[in-house]
Amino acid sequence: MSLPSQYAGTVTTALQTPPTPSLVIDEERLDHNISGMAAFAARAGLALRPHVKTHKSVEIARRQVAGGAIGITVATISEAEVFATAGLTDIFIAYPLWLDVDKAARLRRVLTITPLLIGIDSVEGAARLAEGATGLSDRLSVLVEVDSGHHRSGVLPSQVGRVASAAAELGLDVAGVFTFPGHSYSPDKREVAAADEMQALVEAVAALTREGITARIVSGGSTPSVQFSDASVLTELRPGVYVFGDAQQWELGTCSSDDIALTVLATVVSRSPERVVADAGSKALAADRGAFSSGFGRLLDYPEARLSAISEHHVTITGIDCPPGTRLRVVPNHVCSAVNLADEYVVERAGRVVATWPVDARGRNI
Amino acid sequence: MSLPSQYAGTVTTALQTPPTPSLVIDEERLDHNISGMAAFAARAGLALRPHVKTHKSVEIARRQVAGGAIGITVATISEAEVFATAGLTDIFIAYPLWLDVDKAARLRRVLTITPLLIGIDSVEGAARLAEGATGLSDRLSVLVEVDSGHHRSGVLPSQVGRVASAAAELGLDVAGVFTFPGHSYSPDKREVAAADEMQALVEAVAALTREGITARIVSGGSTPSVQFSDASVLTELRPGVYVFGDAQQWELGTCSSDDIALTVLATVVSRSPERVVADAGSKALAADRGAFSSGFGRLLDYPEARLSAISEHHVTITGIDCPPGTRLRVVPNHVCSAVNLADEYVVERAGRVVATWPVDARGRNI
Repeated sequence: MSLPSQYAGTVTTALQTPPTPSLVIDEERLDHNISGMAAFAARAGLALRPHVKTHKSVEIARRQVAGGAIGITVATISEAEVFATAGLTDIFIAYPLWLDVDKAARLRRVLTITPLLIGIDSVEGAARLAEGATGLSDRLSVLVEVDSGHHRSGVLPSQVGRVASAAAELGLDVAGVFTFPGHSYSPDKREVAAADEMQALVEAVAALTREGITARIVSGGSTPSVQFSDASVLTELRPGVYVFGDAQQWELGTCSSDDIALTVLATVVSRSPERVVADAGSKALAADRGAFSSGFGRLLDYPEARLSAISEHHVTITGIDCPPGTRLRVVPNHVCSAVNLADEYVVERAGRVVATWPVDARGRNI
Repeated sequence: MSLPSQYAGTVTTALQTPPTPSLVIDEERLDHNISGMAAFAARAGLALRPHVKTHKSVEIARRQVAGGAIGITVATISEAEVFATAGLTDIFIAYPLWLDVDKAARLRRVLTITPLLIGIDSVEGAARLAEGATGLSDRLSVLVEVDSGHHRSGVLPSQVGRVASAAAELGLDVAGVFTFPGHSYSPDKREVAAADEMQALVEAVAALTREGITARIVSGGSTPSVQFSDASVLTELRPGVYVFGDAQQWELGTCSSDDIALTVLATVVSRSPERVVADAGSKALAADRGAFSSGFGRLLDYPEARLSAISEHHVTITGIDCPPGTRLRVVPNHVCSAVNLADEYVVERAGRVVATWPVDARGRNI
C-alpha cells in the first residue's frame, strides 16, 4: 500500500507523526513556562503551589517541584490519590470537600501517604472533615475559602472568623485562608480582580487574627491575575494554566502565541468555498467559550482564522483556505478541559516526537 | 467512624449510593426510549441505525440492535474498532474520513472484522479511501455526505454527482447519500431543518440517478428533527441522543423531563444566600451550551432552578436553596459530551443500583 503523503504542504511540517486529533506538548516551551513562573514567584518572595488540575500529569508536577514549587494544588480527593501515590507531597485540595463515607475512606488513605491541606467554607463541611479524619487529624490542616468576587464557593471575609473558629473548636488546625479570583477571566478585569483578591484576603487574615488564629498560609493567584499579586498580603500562588497557556490566556493578553506549549493537532477533512472543517471537535478541544472568546479556540499558525462552530468531531474554521489533509495546530480555549479529554500527551522537542506521557489523573472527579 | 448520614433530606432519596459526581442511568427509562424510537421507525417504515457516539456503550448498542436497529452509526475509526470487536455489525462511520497511513491500517483491521459504510465528501478523500482499502474494497461501501443546511461537512446537492461518479470510477461501491440536519438544534427550526433535509436528499438522490447510480441508502435524522421525517425520501434514521435525552432536548421540546434516562448525580458543597454550588462542573457535565439554553444544564427534580455558571468542579445554581450535602440529579445540556468524560455508568432500576457499565469507547477520537 503506497498512500500518497498525508501532509499536504508546508503547514506544521515538523508535526507529522501523531494521528489526529492528538494532544501535543512543545517540551521546550513547557519547561520555559515552568521556570518562568518559578522565577516570578521567587522574585516576588512568594511560594508557588501550582494547580495540577491543568495538566493532570505526574511528570509535569515533578518538573514543577524540581523547578522550585513547594508542593501542588489539586481539586479532588481522587486527584490527590494519583499524585500522592506517585510521591508528590505537600498537597492542597483547594475545594470545600463534603465528605460522605466513601470520600472519607479515600481521604484517610491519602492522609496515610502524605499530610494534606484542605479547603473549607462551612461549619458543617468542617465538622465532617474533623470526623472523617479522626485519628489522622495531625496530618491535616485547613484553609478557609474566601469569596473575593468570583461568587462561586467560599465565604465573604465577614464570615471567615465564624468558620475558622468553629473549625478550630472541632480540633482542626486552621493554617490560613485561600481564594480564587476567577473574575480575572475578563480582558478588563485582570487587575481589578487581583485588587479584589488582595482586599478580601487582608480582611480574612484580620478576621482570623481577631479569633486568635495566625494565618500561616495566605493562598491566591489565578494565571490571569498573578502578575498583579501583592507579596505583602499573599504567602503563596496557585496558578495552573501557565504551564501550557491556551486561547483564553492568549486573548486575555496573559500570554502570547509564542508561549503556548500545548496544541491539539488536527487534520482538515472537508473544504468548501466558505469554510474548512478539521477533525478536532468538542470531544478533543472541549466546548468552553468565554464571553470574550473569538471562537472555539485559535489556530497557532493562523491567528487571523476563526473557529466559528464546533461539534463533537468537527471544528468549522473560517478565514483560511487549505486543502483536505492539511494539518493544523489548534489552541484550545481552556486547556484544562481539553487535557481531561485525552489519555496521553505526545511530547515533541524541536518538532520531533520524543515521548508520550499519560494524563495520569484524567477523569479524576471524585 | 460514625459519620452522620450523608444525605440531607428527601431529595433523590432513592439515589443514595454512588459517589459524586457519577453518571447515573435510569435503566427503565433507557429501555423505554430504545423501544420507543424503534417503534417509531417501524411505524414509519424506516430502518434505524442509531448513532452510538452518544453512549459509547457496547451494552446499550446491543439493546438497540435487539430492539430492532439494523446496525449502528459511529463517528470515528477507533469507535468502529470498539464496537466491531464486541461483535456489532453493519457499522456506518458517518464522517468524511481522511486516511493517513495510521488510519488506513486501523480501518483495514476493522474491515477484516465487519463490512463498513463510510462517508465521503470529496474526491480526494474518496481516493485515499480506495487506496487505503485496496484488497478489502468488497467490504466497503460509501455514502456521499450532503450539506442540507447545517453548513459543516458535506457537499451541496449540486456537487453530489461529481463526488459520487469519481468514487465509482475509483472502484468504490456508492450505496447512497447521508446528511445531518444539525440546524435542527434551535427551538423554531426543528421542522424547517427536517424540510431542508428532505429537499437536499431528494436533490442528491436525483444527482446519483443522473450518474447511473441507485441510492440504496438514504440516511438522515437528528433527534430533534426525526419526528418530521419523510419516509418517501429516507430509507434510514440515525438519531443518537434519544436513548438518554438531555437538557438541550428538554428545552427544545423533543423530550420531557420524564423521558430523561441519564443524570449526573452531584452533591451540594457550598451554600450562600444567593446560590448553592454542587460538585458537578464542566469536567463532569461538559461546557456545551446552546444559544437557546437556559444555563449549563438543568436539575431533573427542580426545573425552576438555573445552572448559572460552571467551572471545572463547581456548578453554581440559583433558584433553589438547600443545605450542603443535598444530592441533586443534574441533566447535562449535551449528553454525548458528558458521557465522554466518564469511565463508567452507574445503572439504577427503581432507584437501586443494579450494575455498572463501562463507557467502552470513551475518548475514541481517532
